[in-house]
Order: sequence, then structure tokens, then C-alpha cells
Amino acid sequence: MSLFLHDIPLKEATKRLEEALLEVNLWKVLGIETIHLDENAFGRVLAFPLHARISSPNYNSSAMDGFAVKTEETIGAKPAFPISLQIDSQAKYVDTGDPIPDGFNAVVQLEEVESLDENGNISINQRFPIFIRLRSAVVPWKNVRTLGEDVALTQLIFVGGHTIRPVDLGVIAAAGFSEIDVARKPRVAILPTGSELVPIGNNPKPGEIIEFNSLVLAGKINEWGGVATRFPIIHDEFDAIYENVMAAVDECDLILLNAGSSAGSEDFSAKVVEKAGKLLVHGVAVRPGHPVIIGMIRKGNHRVPIIGVPGFPVSAALTLDIFVQNLLNIWLGRLQFEDDRLVAKLSRKVTSPAGDDDYIRVVLAKVGGEFLAAPLSRGAGVISSLAQADGLMLIPRGVQGLEGGEKVNITLLRKRTEIEQTILCIGSHDLLLDELALFLSKKNRRFLSVNVGSLGGLIALDREEAHIAGSHLLDIDTGEYNFKFIKKYVRNIDVRVIALAMRNQGLLVKKNNPKKIESLTDLLRKDVKYINRQKGAGTRILLDYYLKINEIPFEQIKGYGQEEYTHLGVAAAIASGRADCGLGIAAASLAYDLWFVPLFTERYDLVINQRFADSELIYPLYGVLENPTFKKTISKLFGYDIDLMGKIMTGK
Amino acid sequence: MSLFLHDIPLKEATKRLEEALLEVNLWKVLGIETIHLDENAFGRVLAFPLHARISSPNYNSSAMDGFAVKTEETIGAKPAFPISLQIDSQAKYVDTGDPIPDGFNAVVQLEEVESLDENGNISINQRFPIFIRLRSAVVPWKNVRTLGEDVALTQLIFVGGHTIRPVDLGVIAAAGFSEIDVARKPRVAILPTGSELVPIGNNPKPGEIIEFNSLVLAGKINEWGGVATRFPIIHDEFDAIYENVMAAVDECDLILLNAGSSAGSEDFSAKVVEKAGKLLVHGVAVRPGHPVIIGMIRKGNHRVPIIGVPGFPVSAALTLDIFVQNLLNIWLGRLQFEDDRLVAKLSRKVTSPAGDDDYIRVVLAKVGGEFLAAPLSRGAGVISSLAQADGLMLIPRGVQGLEGGEKVNITLLRKRTEIEQTILCIGSHDLLLDELALFLSKKNRRFLSVNVGSLGGLIALDREEAHIAGSHLLDIDTGEYNFKFIKKYVRNIDVRVIALAMRNQGLLVKKNNPKKIESLTDLLRKDVKYINRQKGAGTRILLDYYLKINEIPFEQIKGYGQEEYTHLGVAAAIASGRADCGLGIAAASLAYDLWFVPLFTERYDLVINQRFADSELIYPLYGVLENPTFKKTISKLFGYDIDLMGKIMTGK
Repeated sequence: MSLFLHDIPLKEATKRLEEALLEVNLWKVLGIETIHLDENAFGRVLAFPLHARISSPNYNSSAMDGFAVKTEETIGAKPAFPISLQIDSQAKYVDTGDPIPDGFNAVVQLEEVESLDENGNISINQRFPIFIRLRSAVVPWKNVRTLGEDVALTQLIFVGGHTIRPVDLGVIAAAGFSEIDVARKPRVAILPTGSELVPIGNNPKPGEIIEFNSLVLAGKINEWGGVATRFPIIHDEFDAIYENVMAAVDECDLILLNAGSSAGSEDFSAKVVEKAGKLLVHGVAVRPGHPVIIGMIRKGNHRVPIIGVPGFPVSAALTLDIFVQNLLNIWLGRLQFEDDRLVAKLSRKVTSPAGDDDYIRVVLAKVGGEFLAAPLSRGAGVISSLAQADGLMLIPRGVQGLEGGEKVNITLLRKRTEIEQTILCIGSHDLLLDELALFLSKKNRRFLSVNVGSLGGLIALDREEAHIAGSHLLDIDTGEYNFKFIKKYVRNIDVRVIALAMRNQGLLVKKNNPKKIESLTDLLRKDVKYINRQKGAGTRILLDYYLKINEIPFEQIKGYGQEEYTHLGVAAAIASGRADCGLGIAAASLAYDLWFVPLFTERYDLVINQRFADSELIYPLYGVLENPTFKKTISKLFGYDIDLMGKIMTGK
Repeated sequence: MSLFLHDIPLKEATKRLEEALLEVNLWKVLGIETIHLDENAFGRVLAFPLHARISSPNYNSSAMDGFAVKTEETIGAKPAFPISLQIDSQAKYVDTGDPIPDGFNAVVQLEEVESLDENGNISINQRFPIFIRLRSAVVPWKNVRTLGEDVALTQLIFVGGHTIRPVDLGVIAAAGFSEIDVARKPRVAILPTGSELVPIGNNPKPGEIIEFNSLVLAGKINEWGGVATRFPIIHDEFDAIYENVMAAVDECDLILLNAGSSAGSEDFSAKVVEKAGKLLVHGVAVRPGHPVIIGMIRKGNHRVPIIGVPGFPVSAALTLDIFVQNLLNIWLGRLQFEDDRLVAKLSRKVTSPAGDDDYIRVVLAKVGGEFLAAPLSRGAGVISSLAQADGLMLIPRGVQGLEGGEKVNITLLRKRTEIEQTILCIGSHDLLLDELALFLSKKNRRFLSVNVGSLGGLIALDREEAHIAGSHLLDIDTGEYNFKFIKKYVRNIDVRVIALAMRNQGLLVKKNNPKKIESLTDLLRKDVKYINRQKGAGTRILLDYYLKINEIPFEQIKGYGQEEYTHLGVAAAIASGRADCGLGIAAASLAYDLWFVPLFTERYDLVINQRFADSELIYPLYGVLENPTFKKTISKLFGYDIDLMGKIMTGK
């Protein structure tokens, strides 16, 4: 079925691109330009090594305000046997930075001499006396910055390929340069195609998608030292795409043709590349991103490489990372150092097709002495995973997956310290956690919440794979929350349990409750489709408990097997018509203009590993829980009671 | 003597600045502006938290090219019992991204169905058949990206204070934003003052200094998210400085007045600040940088803080780092995470005045499993140390110094991987090492050479404080190089010794050799001033050896006690008139247009710790030593012979 699509290994694909560019002499620095040395030189890449053209200082220079002297005339000076020197012939006043006068070879600091008048008395004019008196000898070249001390003529200042940082500007200027030769910036044309696309600023109707890939691609190109030009959206028409590609050729060094790179009915990219030049690659065994196209466009003697970038945003970003970043480095002649990495413990098992190089985005936190990597949703379309990701993990071709607990190499996408200042909260989802994140961000803490349900959270906490677990697990025997489950599932560590809030749970239903759903019994009705939470979620346990005591058979509930991982996910399912109702918290109903049928009240606790409970990392949390503004914010939310907030809870 | 200068602790100084700004309500975000969401939003700081305004996808969307079906109609389908569905009523073709038609609830991938024509035969038109045949049941919502799956309406996307990265642009657009509110960029006026200053592009005469501080300051301000305006150079005149300060007030949020902040005869900054407003701080107990001024300028109701930045470039850069970076973060509302740090072993003892917070720049490399920090020259004027530095070490107030071998915390100024890809070569200085660095940089290796002399290099190598030692130590008994010293000083590790080159040593003298210096005996002449290398340098040992066998008393050589650390340092001393001659290598004479009187030939070896000799890090070195272009480059240099280059040497 794949019209042309035939996946080849990533290595083979990059090799074909490199060879095609070598053939037309484009696998090298594209060009060199001379720029003025000013603050805009920041970020440019040096075309050649820089050797100092002048010395710095370029003369023997005073390092102090004081008097230049001839050291041989100070020999023998002692506290009890001072030596007097006559101004001009034996000593001369110099300011810091002044040249050392001819015949002099050291400077005595102003504070260390006695300035005398013509009668040998202390002079009121300290800087312009007639004599100075010294009480110790001076060694040659004391307080003198000698010629070339800082930068010596001809000395290597920077190697070619160095990227200029602000501090580098000074030493380049000091070495005598007012202009520098840098690599010309590669120009990259970005062509978004797709009849379903609408520009940013539109409110998309069903079937329409906001075109934002070009923004991400342009941002990356500019960050890497290129100049991106975004074309207007092109409809899925062969001729329109072909004409735009041929127009782009004249003004750029690389074309990125976004979407239409697969083999669907409206995927014209491969055909356009075949007509406009040569198709080198169609399909790369890499996840996410399979349908990558690589080709070379021809126009007269002109050759411009083209990359067909898949439409799904995560695939698009990855395609740029693995093909274009390196290409820009070659074109800029930039010295290439590997990205910052760290070793982390994988939080859960991940599977991977053996034939692909599989890139998986993860979030990271440091729990105890160890970094922990939790894989994010792997959908190629999940744009939010791009922004959330702290790091990138590669499962190489030939490896079919990794076990939870394995040590993995992570390429960092965020500053290491930001990861070290991350509080990792695994467990149940609640909208309060977003508010907590906002308040903690002002205390320089990143509060990262990963939703695996209450039970999953406790298990992760016990394995020291989180600092905190968010939990609201009802003990049906005692009516108490969490402690029975902590006792059962948290055996390796001690914990401190702090109440966050009491909250309402109830049925989320469509606006005006058109199906009049009022109780759990209504879930058995034929016309009612339910949407469930995942196993281990406190809300799921709550449901199952009440189904059981009300003797409602779960097998007869339509949609019971459909699971969502968050309250907002349940709300979205109802809003989009996938379901009629679902159990969830009140606040979730507001987002999608749903109604809320309150059924139960439950306590939501933060269960903190005792080992971290008094750490510098966690400490700001307690301040937030006592902060009146935070309390007020939460109490205004729909369905919460904050009376217990911040209270340390103890089990029976 | 200090006219106003009175050092206060750093903490107290930052507190006074904060309090003064609080008083006039300027210790907060300066302002908010709405900008269009495009690639230029990169680097801006969000003024408020962003909550999603729309869902993404905003409809139930097909994740595949295929057919939308109703899953209840697929129940029971098995390989041997296929089910046929009629197009339109039971199945509808959808492209990836298309909305799921009303009443349908899953998508079957094109590749997984049999497309049939009206007679039940396989259709040639796979996408537009009359029936499709399925051989397995489909679960609800399979291959459907459900509404809000990626971004759920009202979900927190970013906290306020987040700095926008390229990947963030996509999710912000997907969440329904076409404009965003960001912090206004703080405007910073930079006023360089000093009668000795000349603009970049001038060839400075003695007593003149190229004005480059403003460039470094502007680069840093822009990097940190501000907008810098550089004023033309202002002469050291009270009125001129005062007028420029008062003019700058109208158009900026912060004034940086560079130099004149000390208490010398031409230091007007403090007086200007006193006249134009209020002087809050004059002198901070921090090294390098003591004479910092902090004040508040008044003009009508307008208040603008001013910082008097010391003139020495290292002091100037540090002053910005410790006072201005944080201020800009406050003004931008930027979330502040600490800088990346690592723990390193200090290579040598450093002393520090107990009263100061002492910031010391270091170079870093990873030797074996451990990071090693070698302190750079600490002169406040050494601009090259700014560019060379890999990290910054603080010796806090109250601590008088640190011992060699101590573990220290280093704030990184360079990417960690760049440090991990660094080959550290400690030992003797030779200009060849610069060439080696250039060639290795193309192999993604940073070759860092630290000059401590041949003997110091071997001792460092033995302590595993370097990968390689550069050495040319003559054994006066055998005429052999290095092996006797390796045997004596390198006892803990095995080494591989590789010849780099034979090189000439001789006397560097002024052009045309005006004093007719021809041999070591001439060093005894009264009219000849010598400049020496430091103890432990191979060149020093060579000199001492030949002085001894020629029975020349070193005490009678003028300047024997004056030491330089490099060949170029010796050459610069002669060029500037500090000395008439010095022993050194031929190549050093070229830089300063000196003459060279050849005396000896010696072998320069690279002594490599055997443990690292075959590592991935070191490996590219051997390629360079065999590279014909490298060999040619070196053989063209003055005074080298490359016959032995790359050869493994063995001792007797």
C-alpha cells in the first residue's frame, strides 16, 4: 500500500543526505562574511582561528594609582631607615593604566608612601609632592601590568568554529579586532502545506488545525544560528506545492516542506520532490517520524536540499533535531559538542519496535541521590509533550524495550538545576496541583505532577520514585482515607501525611443534564454511556466501592471499559459526545461547561517521603499551604473545602 | 586615603540596592506588553500563567488514514469470519486529521481492511470502495485522537515567569493564543568613561586602551533579556559624566557607569552619583571588583538606579553577574533556577583575604572519573581569563583559602559536555600546542594546555590531574629526554611517551641584536638584562644546566630573578624593553619581531597517562599527529623538526 514509503535506517538516511550534499559541494561552510565587532556578534560562529593582532596591555602599564620608581634606588629602605626620592627625576605619579615612564620599572601604591613638601614635611597634596619617602625596598616590575601579560601578540585566542559569547567580545577587541569573519547564516524556507490548516489567531472549527509547526521549526532554526522564512499556508494541491518549492529555491539553502510526506491520498511531497529534483529518501525507521522525505531540488545549476517533515508536531520537531541541527552545524562550521546528558532510572517499562530508532521524551526529577525518568505520552501528535519534556531517551534499533528501574542515558532538554529544583508528585490528578505549581514556581520550585492514580502514586513513593504522592483512597471498613493503603503499600519508607483539601466527587454530565442522570443507578440505563478512570485511580476505587455496596453490576455499564487518566480527560470525553457522564471532581465540570451532580466528599492528601519532608527542596511547600492568598484561591474553586489544608494527619 | 571608598559585605550591598528599589516600587516586573506569537517570541518571559483557551485536538480526530467505523458493528469479526461494511452508512474514508463523522467511534487503518467493489471483489480503488471487509473486531475509539487528548481546555500550559523556548511556541498556539503578554524588556544604558579609552578599531598607542568593556556589558545585558544602549566614550570630566548620566535617565531603567568608580584622582563616579541623586554603596568586599558604586539617580519624580562598574574587565564582568543579572530577573519576573554546578578537585592551593567574597575563575577537565579545576590568573585586568574560564568558584567571606586537592563547588560557564570532551595537557609551553588545539577542535576535542613547566606537568600527571604532560627535560648524564624524570616523579601510573617534535632553543634578542648577544657568557655583561622562565620549566633547567657546565654564576646575571611563564611572555618582556634577552624557542621570536640566536636542540614529548592513552577522548590525537597537513603546518614553523612526530619513545 505504501506508495513510495520504504523505511530505511536513520544512519543510512543521514548518509544519503551527506553524500548528496558532498556531491554538489554543499557539505561544508556555506560562506563567510565580515561583520563589525559589536554586541550583535553574539552567537555568530568564527570562520577562522583568531590570533592576537596586538598585545594587551600593549605597553607596560601601572596596575595602581601611585608613584613609578626605579627599584635599584629603593634598595636598603627599611622602616627605621627610609629613603627619600625626588619627584620627576626619581619618582613620577601615575594613575592606574598609565604607561610606566621610560627608565622606571615599578610602581609603589599611593597608600604606601609618605608624600613630602619641599621642607621634608608631610605634604597636603598627596599626589603632587616634592619628595616621597619609602620604608621598604621595591622589587622590579611590582604593580606593573607588563606588555602582553594578558594577551600576547600572535597568541591563539579562539579556534575557528567557536561560537561567540558575550565575554568573548572583550578579548577579541583587546586582541585588536574591530571586524571578524564569521560563517554566513544558512537561510531556511519553511513551507507549511495542508488544506486543513488555519493560521494562528483563528478559532479552529472541527476538521481545522491551527498551523503552528512552522513556528516551532522557525524557532529552532533561528536558535541554531540559521535564518528562517515562513511561507504562507499552501493547500494540498500538487501544482501549488511545486510552484512554492521552485520559488523558494532561489532564496534559501534548505527547504522544509511540512506535512504531506506520508503516502496518503493528499500527500504530494514525494511527487513534488521527484518532479523538482531527486528523491533520495522516503521513510526513515525512526519513531516518532517515519514518513521523512529527503531530496535535492534542481533549478538550472542551482541545488537545494529539501526535507519533507512529517505533520505530527512531535515527529516534525524530532526530524529537525536529527537531520537539520547537524546540517546547520556543518554549514556554520560550528564546533560540535554533544548535548548535556545524565543517567537516570527509568520509572516504568517501555516497549519499542526492534526495527526503529525510537526517541522517547521523558520528564526528570532528582529523588534522593538519583535522577528519575518518567516517559511522557508517546503520540506523535502530542504537542504538549514537546514543551513538557525534560529530556530525550533513545531506544536504538535492535532493542525491543527497556524495563522499569533500568539505568538509561538521557539527553537534557532543560537546565540540570531546573531538574534538581523539581518536586516530583506522582499519584492522583487534581486541579489543585496546578495551583500549587503556580505558587511554588514563585519560590523557584518546579512542581511536576505525574498522573498514575492514587495507588500507583503510593507504590512509586515506596520505591523512592517520587518525593510526594497525591492520594485519596477510601478505606471502606473505617471510612478513613489513605492510611490503610499506606500501611499496605508503603513499607520501605516513612511518610508524613498532609491534608490538601476535602473535595466533592460526583457525576459530570452534559449542560442542563439532558439525560437526567442523578445517581449511580442511572449508569445501568441503555441510553447512558459512561466514561471511566483508569484502574488504581482513587476515583475508580470510589466508583467500584459504591457500585458494590449498591449492588450495581459493572459489566452492565456501557463504557465502563473506556478509561481516561485525568478528570479533564473525562470532562473532554463528555463534552465531545464520546460519553454522557463520568465520575469526577466538580472543578473539571467548569472547563467544558458541563454540569456536576455531587455524590460524595473525600479527603485528598499529600503523602511525603519523610526523608525529604524537611529538605530544602520541599520546604517551600509548607509556606504555600499556609499562604492566605493560596487558601483563598482554592476556596474560591468549585467543590473544595480547605479547613484541613496543611494539617499533619495521623492514622488510627 | 580612600576618599569615600568603604567596603561593605556583598550581602549588605545587594540588600541596600533591593531596599532602595522597593522604596520607589521598582523591585518588581517593570511592565507588561502584548506581543504577537511568532518566532521572535523566543526568549521572552511570560507575564502570567497560560491556561489553554481551546482544546487540542478540538474535535475527535482520525489518527490514521483509514475508515471510520461503528465498533458495535465489528463485534465477532474473525480471520475466518470476516464482516463486510457498506461505505457511507457503515464506514467512511478519513484522512489523518479528519473529524470522526457523527455516529462513528473508531478508525481502521487502511492497510488492515480489504476494499471491495460492488461485486465483493477486491477493489482497485482502495480508498473509494463500495464495501470494506474486516477480519477482526475494533475497540471503541481506536486510532482516534480524542478531543482534549493533547491539551485540555483550561489546563495549565505554563506558569508565569516561564522563558519561551522554540518548542513552547507550538503548544501556546495549539492552546489558542495568537498573542501573549510578556514582561517588557528592561532598558540599560552603558556609559564608558575614561580619557585613556579609544574606540574599537583604533591601534592603541602607549597609554591608550581599547574600550571593550561596554561591549561585554551590552552582550550580557542582551543575553539576559534586556536591551542595552552603548553611549560613546566620555572623557574623565565631572561635568561631561554628570550630563550624560542625566541624559540617560530619561530613556533607561538602569545606568551602568563604567570605570571611575574607585577613589583615584580622576574617579568622578561617586561624586556624580552624589550630585545626581543618592550614593548608597561605595565599595563592596568582593574580589575582583572592590570599587563598586550603587546609587539612585533622581530627575523630577523619576528614579533610576545606577551602578558604578569598576574598570578592570574581570571586575566589570563579575559586577554585572552579581548585581545586574538578578535585577533583570526580578524586572522580567523570570523564574530563577540556580546555575549549573559541579564538584571538582582543586588543582592547587589558593589563598584568599578573609574579609572578601572571592570569585575565582577556573578551567575544568574530567580526568578519569573526576572533574579537575585549575585556577586561572586572578588579575582583575586579565580579560583573557574571562573567555578562558570554564567555571567560577567562590571562596566566601571568612574563608582564607583552599588547599590543593580539596573538593570545590563550581558554577559552570560552559557546557558540561564541552568540559567532558576536553583533553587536559599540563606542563611545558610550546606554540605547537596551539596548532594541536586547532586540529583537534575539528575532531570535537577541546585541547586545553595549562603551563606549569615540564616538571610541574609530570607531577600533575602522576597525581592524575591531567591526561597528558608536555615535557622536554634533559637528563644531563645521558643526554636523553624525560625518562629519568618520569622514573623519578611519575610513580603511581604507567605512561606512554610520544615525541611531538625536535625544537631549537636559543636566545631571543631585540631586532638586529643591538647588544650583540651571542652566547650564555654574554649574560654576565653589565649592559645585558636577562628575563628568565619560572622554576621547573624545561627551559629553565636547560639554562641552569648550561650555566653550570660553563661555570657561569647565575647570581651575576641581571634579571635572573625575573620570571615569565611562557615563551611569548619572555618575548613580550624583551619587546617592551624590560629585558634584552631570554632563552626560548625560535617561534616566539617571530611574534614580536625579535631575533633568535640558536644554541641548543631538544626533544619535546607528550607524556600520556596509559590509562587514558587508548580512550575515545584521546584517540583523535594520534590521527592529528599522522595528519600530513598538520605535519606540513608544523614543519613550516620556525625552529622545528618533525621527523620523530608521533613516534612512541622508550627510555634506556
